Amino acid sequence: MLINEKNPHGGQIYNKEIKADFSVNVNPKGTPEKVVEAAAEALRMSDRYPDAGCRDLIQAISKKDGVQANNIICGNGGAELIFQVAAALKPKKGLIIEPTFCEYRQSLEASECQIKTYQLTKETGFDVNAEIERIREQIEEDTDVVFVCNPNNPTGLSVSGENIEKLLKRCNETGTMLFIDESFGELTEGYEKFSAIKRVAENKNLFILKSLTKTYAIAGIRLGYGLCSDKELLEKMCRMSQCWNVSLVAQKAGEAALSCSSYVEDTLIVLRNERKYVTDELNRLGIRTFRGEANYMMIYSESDLYELLLKKGILIRSCANFRGLGKNYFRIAIKNHVSNKLLIDALDEIDKEGNLCTGQA
Amino acid sequence: MLINEKNPHGGQIYNKEIKADFSVNVNPKGTPEKVVEAAAEALRMSDRYPDAGCRDLIQAISKKDGVQANNIICGNGGAELIFQVAAALKPKKGLIIEPTFCEYRQSLEASECQIKTYQLTKETGFDVNAEIERIREQIEEDTDVVFVCNPNNPTGLSVSGENIEKLLKRCNETGTMLFIDESFGELTEGYEKFSAIKRVAENKNLFILKSLTKTYAIAGIRLGYGLCSDKELLEKMCRMSQCWNVSLVAQKAGEAALSCSSYVEDTLIVLRNERKYVTDELNRLGIRTFRGEANYMMIYSESDLYELLLKKGILIRSCANFRGLGKNYFRIAIKNHVSNKLLIDALDEIDKEGNLCTGQA
Repeated sequence: MLINEKNPHGGQIYNKEIKADFSVNVNPKGTPEKVVEAAAEALRMSDRYPDAGCRDLIQAISKKDGVQANNIICGNGGAELIFQVAAALKPKKGLIIEPTFCEYRQSLEASECQIKTYQLTKETGFDVNAEIERIREQIEEDTDVVFVCNPNNPTGLSVSGENIEKLLKRCNETGTMLFIDESFGELTEGYEKFSAIKRVAENKNLFILKSLTKTYAIAGIRLGYGLCSDKELLEKMCRMSQCWNVSLVAQKAGEAALSCSSYVEDTLIVLRNERKYVTDELNRLGIRTFRGEANYMMIYSESDLYELLLKKGILIRSCANFRGLGKNYFRIAIKNHVSNKLLIDALDEIDKEGNLCTGQA
Repeated sequence: MLINEKNPHGGQIYNKEIKADFSVNVNPKGTPEKVVEAAAEALRMSDRYPDAGCRDLIQAISKKDGVQANNIICGNGGAELIFQVAAALKPKKGLIIEPTFCEYRQSLEASECQIKTYQLTKETGFDVNAEIERIREQIEEDTDVVFVCNPNNPTGLSVSGENIEKLLKRCNETGTMLFIDESFGELTEGYEKFSAIKRVAENKNLFILKSLTKTYAIAGIRLGYGLCSDKELLEKMCRMSQCWNVSLVAQKAGEAALSCSSYVEDTLIVLRNERKYVTDELNRLGIRTFRGEANYMMIYSESDLYELLLKKGILIRSCANFRGLGKNYFRIAIKNHVSNKLLIDALDEIDKEGNLCTGQA
């Protein structure tokens, strides 16, 4: 056992024979060729240190998101920024809405923060919108930070713009930092409607996380960024970490990615069609699908789909280590049609082999 | 001013017109072609998350350094690991021997640690060896960590194996973590003699930092690692940070780098010849050079060499922000002969223009 072999997430393909990986949720169109080219060009200059100021990349982000350059901070993937925020905020009390991405909790634990958990219920389909009033009540005077994943991981459900406003209003009353992880936002239907980006400039209690890793399928290059108008917080995050955290390769890849016009729009069309295809096919096979808008979906089955599919070379994400879910919940990426058909064919085989239960949650 | 434009180091070429950068100290032979190729190949898989366990890379490091795999931790450049160690150790009191690389201090400040400074003196040429007894006395029962840069930055002087033993013995008495930064070790004469790597397995109070960034000129890719047999510390470092900190590109580049046999040996020959050439030429011009063994050297001049050379498109490192040095000290990389000649020619021009003082420290 190696010391840093502690990955609780999907994408653990390195010790397995895998023909299709549905356990990670990156853009199903893959890395844009332009991005690979720009990164390869950067490799030719790899004896240089990266620009610690990420100047060109930040200008590109600023232009795309309409956020001032000095409200932008870049990271070695979005995950790094989660830990940086927690380390810089040093919160005494934090609220996490489960089930969700486990790095929020891990970052709070690393900062020795007391964690309050709001557990979403099976009855609402784990939908923040349906439980928004109860969640809002959990944000108290002594709550220093709340993590909201929008759309949520693993459910794929987004929190409406209206409900985000409610949370933001409450956080302004209590002086709580509202950390909204919009990492999968760009790959989700209706993103413009629920994104809180337009509220960043005027609102110091808001930190928005975005991930080029997911949007442009550059998970192996690593690139994320944060949007926040609390300059003291951003400065503290910088002071508490090395200045060259974003590689030159990532900076150049990111600049190229942000110049890929229509790439995300095209992806959303693929996702819409494929979400329908996958949902229909899974339902035909008696597997319960959860409604969602993201580039992944949560499903339920009383069969051990993780093991059954792994035997056929297909990796999906077991949700057993998401709080409040359990071994019958799984998350699958929505990929391109060829890949999705591999998944459905494998499930058809499993069904024919008599190994597919059709019990409902 | 962008929020993360806080780089106090060399290599700030991004807002200047530069034809040669002597302010950063990477391998003068540049990035091995094999490394660029391996990294480019990794770009073709960049939609995948990196292996959080860095399995293949760690095996390659283990083989090269003769250190057990579970005593190895990889980082997004060596600098990340400095901050990770400080955050995980949470030292109350730390000792820093100045002048040295400023990230040690920054990492201790981020961890709210009380910092004791030992100031090396001009009289010994800022040589740790000449002041070893006084330094050893500064390591007290309540000292949690000591940072030793070997060879030191910016002086280029290494601490002898014998003196490292003295520090290690003292640290074992006081229960102090001895953090030895051997980032430039491989590019320094006599590395095998002063390296403490052979002491890692048996000694939990030792953390050694190494940097592939420097050794193989992959500053823009970012890759460093730590060697330590205190498993609790390593596990804590992992828990306190994201699991995908080392990009897939960096992992593949690192594996390829470690397979480049004779690359470092060849570099040492270049460095030996060029160190002599540069030293002789600088002395001819009346610029004081400090003795050192690394791939960079410290020099002294009463002229503002930084500004004078910058006007000619050559960037060197002013040592004004190194504690105990000041505006007359500079650090220059030892590069290949063509580049070094550019530097000497520019200084000759400055001399002819009557702008070179020849005062001695």
